[in-house]
Amino acid sequence: MMGLAMGSPLIQHLGIVGVGLIGGSIGAAVRARGLAVKVTGLGRNAAKLQGAIESGIIDVATDDWSRLADCDFAVVATPVDRIVEDVLALNRHCHAGTIVTDAGSVKGSICSGISGDTAIRFVGSHPLAGSEKAGIAHSDAELFQGRVCVVTPDSHTDAGDLAKVKSFWEGLGMRVLSMTPDEHDRRLARTSHLPHLTAAALSCLLESADRSLTSTGFRDTTRIASGDPALWRAIFEANSAAMLTETDRLITLLAQWKEWIAQQDWQRLTAGLQAAKDARDALRDG
Amino acid sequence: MMGLAMGSPLIQHLGIVGVGLIGGSIGAAVRARGLAVKVTGLGRNAAKLQGAIESGIIDVATDDWSRLADCDFAVVATPVDRIVEDVLALNRHCHAGTIVTDAGSVKGSICSGISGDTAIRFVGSHPLAGSEKAGIAHSDAELFQGRVCVVTPDSHTDAGDLAKVKSFWEGLGMRVLSMTPDEHDRRLARTSHLPHLTAAALSCLLESADRSLTSTGFRDTTRIASGDPALWRAIFEANSAAMLTETDRLITLLAQWKEWIAQQDWQRLTAGLQAAKDARDALRDG
Repeated sequence: MMGLAMGSPLIQHLGIVGVGLIGGSIGAAVRARGLAVKVTGLGRNAAKLQGAIESGIIDVATDDWSRLADCDFAVVATPVDRIVEDVLALNRHCHAGTIVTDAGSVKGSICSGISGDTAIRFVGSHPLAGSEKAGIAHSDAELFQGRVCVVTPDSHTDAGDLAKVKSFWEGLGMRVLSMTPDEHDRRLARTSHLPHLTAAALSCLLESADRSLTSTGFRDTTRIASGDPALWRAIFEANSAAMLTETDRLITLLAQWKEWIAQQDWQRLTAGLQAAKDARDALRDG
Repeated sequence: MMGLAMGSPLIQHLGIVGVGLIGGSIGAAVRARGLAVKVTGLGRNAAKLQGAIESGIIDVATDDWSRLADCDFAVVATPVDRIVEDVLALNRHCHAGTIVTDAGSVKGSICSGISGDTAIRFVGSHPLAGSEKAGIAHSDAELFQGRVCVVTPDSHTDAGDLAKVKSFWEGLGMRVLSMTPDEHDRRLARTSHLPHLTAAALSCLLESADRSLTSTGFRDTTRIASGDPALWRAIFEANSAAMLTETDRLITLLAQWKEWIAQQDWQRLTAGLQAAKDARDALRDG
């Protein structure tokens, strides 16, 4: 980090489109690590962005795309159902050299919606960092430190652009993995999108009279159900094929475990719980 | 707390049967709050209990039931499938005045297994506090502070004994709720046992190659899957009727949400996610 800060910054003018939790945290992290000379945030709510200037997260706040014209690097951190149109808007307003990436939790629909236009220097990204909390007020310069970012180049991707996007996320302290957009979506359905749907279902089944009977187990298991319903609806929509497959796998396993409980097959159920414990313990996060 | 500590202690000689995470934390909390003059821990592993004496959690460590003969109050904190036999053992070895409670996560099978014998002064309890971590090494004097304890008196319960058991848990900083054993089991299936089964199922579905693609959401949602498989098997066995009902409810809801994803009925799915968020936000634990 010190090396980057002392040398010439990676980016001259960084544009951040959508300054919420993720966009704001990118600004804060870029500032803390000296990765860019100038940071401009573009959003629809100018009042919110003034606060971001005061907190030192961005230098310039605007709702005018032309203010991003000379950006050499831009990150689109809007909800997944707005990313394609925002990348296309950047392409209309920026100079030909601008490298664009995003922070969307799905990649297939976004990358296929953009890669048809070879004039756009776009590389899809998904930083695996976030929170059930939303909004720039929860911005955190350390949100990305030590976490994984997936980048999803395709056959149109320029090797130099890919290297620059990787360097950007690495500069925020992330470990970068590369895979195709479809592989990303299949695997994230299992590690992120299905857990969210499941947490929401458990939370939905809780009756208000039973709130006092919840303990830390229920609270941990359902924490992410506090996420924004509109954001998650868009993720499920964009990754619906994988969601159908993964939800089926979970229903099948729950039905099997239920059958073992009904049959009092405690040996098989215990083996299933042991396999679950082994998988969870292997994550080693305490 | 100061009032209790300065007055005469609630208990002269407290027996703790099973000195693991819960039993050890009870000892530590009783000591910190001055609730008992003397605390004896009974366990099968004498070496582990020596450590508990050194940490000041108990005064006497034994594997000899006769050492509990003059206890005026005893808590059985063994796994749910051993509680009935341990309560019966206490009854054989203690004097007629000993009040006994437990800390089991299920109540119906335990209370019905004991209440037939009216000579036993037993009141069922379930302190809603715990951890995916096991063992006395994780004992925590503050584990119960601010949490709920359910007590499950039945028609045989003496009002004075019930009052004493309530005072004990309140002395540890808990809020005490009273309900029948069956009501407890039905409601806890929903707030604790089903979430555990679900977290285990999600964890079981994770392939080792995808570990690097898990983020805080997956980790929160599956944390309790690290719990002891044998302990949880015994809970599912003791509460199997309610588990079958609740697992069915979850499968039905997941199947409905899956159908809405397949039909692209985003309005209904978003409403479901919003209901989930409202229920989770109402728990207010940040």
